[in-house]
Amino acid sequence: MKRIEDFKSIIDRYEIIFFDAFGVLKTHSGLVPGIERTFDYLEAQKKEYYIVTNDASRSPGQLAQSYHNKGLYAVTADRIISSGMLTKEYLDLKVNDGIVAYLGTADSAHYLESSGLHTLPVRDINSSNIDKVNLLVFMDDEGFDWCEDLNKTVNLLRKRTIPAIVANTDYAYPVLKNDVGIAIGGIAGMIEAIVGKQFIRFGKPDSQMFMFAYDLIREYRNISKKEIVMVGDTLQTDIIGGNKFGLDTVLVLTGNTQATDYENRIEATGIVPTYICNSAVLGPDVLAF
Amino acid sequence: MKRIEDFKSIIDRYEIIFFDAFGVLKTHSGLVPGIERTFDYLEAQKKEYYIVTNDASRSPGQLAQSYHNKGLYAVTADRIISSGMLTKEYLDLKVNDGIVAYLGTADSAHYLESSGLHTLPVRDINSSNIDKVNLLVFMDDEGFDWCEDLNKTVNLLRKRTIPAIVANTDYAYPVLKNDVGIAIGGIAGMIEAIVGKQFIRFGKPDSQMFMFAYDLIREYRNISKKEIVMVGDTLQTDIIGGNKFGLDTVLVLTGNTQATDYENRIEATGIVPTYICNSAVLGPDVLAF
Amino acid sequence: MKRIEDFKSIIDRYEIIFFDAFGVLKTHSGLVPGIERTFDYLEAQKKEYYIVTNDASRSPGQLAQSYHNKGLYAVTADRIISSGMLTKEYLDLKVNDGIVAYLGTADSAHYLESSGLHTLPVRDINSSNIDKVNLLVFMDDEGFDWCEDLNKTVNLLRKRTIPAIVANTDYAYPVLKNDVGIAIGGIAGMIEAIVGKQFIRFGKPDSQMFMFAYDLIREYRNISKKEIVMVGDTLQTDIIGGNKFGLDTVLVLTGNTQATDYENRIEATGIVPTYICNSAVLGPDVLAF
Amino acid sequence: MKRIEDFKSIIDRYEIIFFDAFGVLKTHSGLVPGIERTFDYLEAQKKEYYIVTNDASRSPGQLAQSYHNKGLYAVTADRIISSGMLTKEYLDLKVNDGIVAYLGTADSAHYLESSGLHTLPVRDINSSNIDKVNLLVFMDDEGFDWCEDLNKTVNLLRKRTIPAIVANTDYAYPVLKNDVGIAIGGIAGMIEAIVGKQFIRFGKPDSQMFMFAYDLIREYRNISKKEIVMVGDTLQTDIIGGNKFGLDTVLVLTGNTQATDYENRIEATGIVPTYICNSAVLGPDVLAF
Repeated sequence: MKRIEDFKSIIDRYEIIFFDAFGVLKTHSGLVPGIERTFDYLEAQKKEYYIVTNDASRSPGQLAQSYHNKGLYAVTADRIISSGMLTKEYLDLKVNDGIVAYLGTADSAHYLESSGLHTLPVRDINSSNIDKVNLLVFMDDEGFDWCEDLNKTVNLLRKRTIPAIVANTDYAYPVLKNDVGIAIGGIAGMIEAIVGKQFIRFGKPDSQMFMFAYDLIREYRNISKKEIVMVGDTLQTDIIGGNKFGLDTVLVLTGNTQATDYENRIEATGIVPTYICNSAVLGPDVLAF
Repeated sequence: MKRIEDFKSIIDRYEIIFFDAFGVLKTHSGLVPGIERTFDYLEAQKKEYYIVTNDASRSPGQLAQSYHNKGLYAVTADRIISSGMLTKEYLDLKVNDGIVAYLGTADSAHYLESSGLHTLPVRDINSSNIDKVNLLVFMDDEGFDWCEDLNKTVNLLRKRTIPAIVANTDYAYPVLKNDVGIAIGGIAGMIEAIVGKQFIRFGKPDSQMFMFAYDLIREYRNISKKEIVMVGDTLQTDIIGGNKFGLDTVLVLTGNTQATDYENRIEATGIVPTYICNSAVLGPDVLAF
Repeated sequence: MKRIEDFKSIIDRYEIIFFDAFGVLKTHSGLVPGIERTFDYLEAQKKEYYIVTNDASRSPGQLAQSYHNKGLYAVTADRIISSGMLTKEYLDLKVNDGIVAYLGTADSAHYLESSGLHTLPVRDINSSNIDKVNLLVFMDDEGFDWCEDLNKTVNLLRKRTIPAIVANTDYAYPVLKNDVGIAIGGIAGMIEAIVGKQFIRFGKPDSQMFMFAYDLIREYRNISKKEIVMVGDTLQTDIIGGNKFGLDTVLVLTGNTQATDYENRIEATGIVPTYICNSAVLGPDVLAF
Repeated sequence: MKRIEDFKSIIDRYEIIFFDAFGVLKTHSGLVPGIERTFDYLEAQKKEYYIVTNDASRSPGQLAQSYHNKGLYAVTADRIISSGMLTKEYLDLKVNDGIVAYLGTADSAHYLESSGLHTLPVRDINSSNIDKVNLLVFMDDEGFDWCEDLNKTVNLLRKRTIPAIVANTDYAYPVLKNDVGIAIGGIAGMIEAIVGKQFIRFGKPDSQMFMFAYDLIREYRNISKKEIVMVGDTLQTDIIGGNKFGLDTVLVLTGNTQATDYENRIEATGIVPTYICNSAVLGPDVLAF
């Protein structure tokens, strides 16, 4: 089995670092202690970094603000690539008119509004406007009445042959030390099984998420996939997604995969990271460069 | 392709008739018109019949009352075999003490209470009683707060290694002419995917549902599976379930499978009923025997 | 977590013992050492026992002979209940004429022949007889050319709307200390995914397998499910199947589930046996009764 | 429902056309009659085109030759983008040394050999070299003994924790007017279910296939996704894949989706093409421009 390696020695070998957010930079109780040192080092070394996250609940600006509130100022809006941004790109390219119905909060609907389309929460769909609905988007698990609006969603998809987008593929997310919450990806999976239709999913492990980040970088500099490394805590999203896209990958043990079970999990899933590190935090001596 | 046959000529060949309820005896708008003639004929011919239904929302007595309220008096409580009764049998055989947590209405919880166990809706599980919970049962889609109690259910199953029973395997049920409701089977499927555990499901197409009815009959008379026919409107539950148990099966076109698409659906699924009839209603001349 | 219990103390509490075969009575290298003492004890105590096995490759007589060859004479043909017997019952009840096509050895086809139907290996299906094929049965992974006959099977099911039976639900079976073989259940799963049709599967964990054994016993004696215990090595077949049927269950650690990981596996799957024992072998002092 | 549109009027609106191969350009009996006129027109209009195909059985050069042999000279090797090329990119980026084991013909192995790695058919893996195997690739359904080598593959993946690549995601492919063959994607699905590990799949509908083509074009010209249209016969690969990547899509009715059922299939799957055309062939008057 692979040995645990030093995180600093790994990032020294790459030009650009992609970080997953939850389980890597932060946990239920706040920032991973010492993570700001990692970003100080990256800045000092003039390495670039991006946060690549399955989070469509808030805009990049709001997400960045949440890091600043915790004391991590290096994570700015332009460093954040969220699955909500892929949904926005889909709308820009593919939907020209009509209503975009959504499940989620008003915050999550910001991703949908900029396209000049009319957005409407599922609760406001009725017989007078249902024929104008051209797209349904699952944005976030909050902001709607589960019982009433999910039943309404099932019947909307039975009556209208329209595409459905899932802006976050995760089935659950951590909310407390030992508790998780059901994510919109899990809810969308239930609706998909009931209506028997095929939804479009954005977010890791899907390649399009990594491609979006890669394209964004290539707009201002030349880069090869060999110069990028993906850092994540989840084999089934961060690691297999990064591997498939052709990136080297680092599994850290501060989130979904723990020091006690990473060997079993890698063997059971056949998902093999390039490296394994205890965390994305640099040792105390690192900044003495 | 099979031709449409006369329902009377079919039931004349069997001793016992199993009927599905929804889509066969009743629809969203009430009883299937004329269905009472079928039961008059069965009574006159001294044929036995049972309603075999994936409905754990109410007791057999309450279900029978709902038929009486509509004017069909032949369906009595002792003629109804519901998936809730299999859940009750499981409790009687397998759970001796502790708390049975459930999602559903107080009506549905009647199936759980007679065993002398302590039953508790999921909403009332807390840190003082969670360690005594020995079983979780998904009974009905009503009677609880979807968002709050489903999140609570996920975390209960993450903290306690206990069996989970799904008392109704259906994913959806009809509520209006063109609308369906999400059934507890669909909700349970979402929770199962999120926690990654394997639930126990009762209800058609599972054989145990048919066996329960068959055993009940054999307590008072000798009967062979060749003398029983199952009548249903759904290929994936009534027909494949009946076929697998070794019964002959009748597909009727008054519910989930329609006259316009039954040929396509049989071909697409490979689920082949023994007979196909327009409905379970007898023609007007039938009673002139 | 449940503690390891003594096997003798458990069987003393039941009238009838159901045993899985592979991983309980025998392994890749022969009989589980000492297992014959268990059967001596059962005979002395006048307890009944049955071998309940997902094995349709040979008749009960041939299976019994294989135990006799290894020195275990207690396992006679009338003690063996195989998934092949459920296939035979299906044919007796549901198929009256025409050809039954099958994948498997000539030995496995014995289950099909006694019904008076014409059986034909898939390799012999051609344009002159394909219209008479009324059933397809997946019996065994041996006895046919995988490439040629599986392609033929796919096209048979595309051309003929007929039921398909899988006589063994297992995906793999052990062949050497560290090697497994692909079982016919795994092959059938591939064909089912390709043709998009729904097959009928017999064998544990399905209830019909347990019901078949239970019915057989009730023909000559009164028994309650509370008086039967199921002994198996596999959570996903023996244990969840036995639990669901309403039986108490014993997990033994001589096969698929090992002493090193049984706690993790029970927690991960949520499949909880009533008891856990190191093996189905009685200690050396047992026979000193 | 969408109306059938004229193919010429559609391609006039785009700069670059992506074509699926089977069911669009060719069928079991050869080229789609008149398809060469489409390419004459594209050449005359100076439009670019690419064949985007889930075919890893032969190199682009060999695939192009097969079109030339049929009389279609416009399809040259540099116009063909196959899922085999994504496998090659993965090897170049991610595998530095050791043995790449594969299932497929020697022709399909060409995609693997250019990276300077040692390639070995699964049949030649043995105890002396198994520890050096760093990757397994499912290339093609031909070139190996299904029974022997698939069993060997299962045991290779049980013994070695290595990534497995599926170079063609299709489950089946047409071989005669009414017959299909099992494709390597279907076989890989069976192995994945048996070993319980997660494979990496290349090919439509996955975005990475479209991204590979898009990147190739952007190396020599600026292009927006709005200027590309994907033409295909299969909703589940060509159309949903193109839609998700942000391309407009044309469903043609010369392959998997027929004039008699396209409306049902679109409604059942919820996969909606931008346009529907009878075929990718231009009318006889088209070349009189």
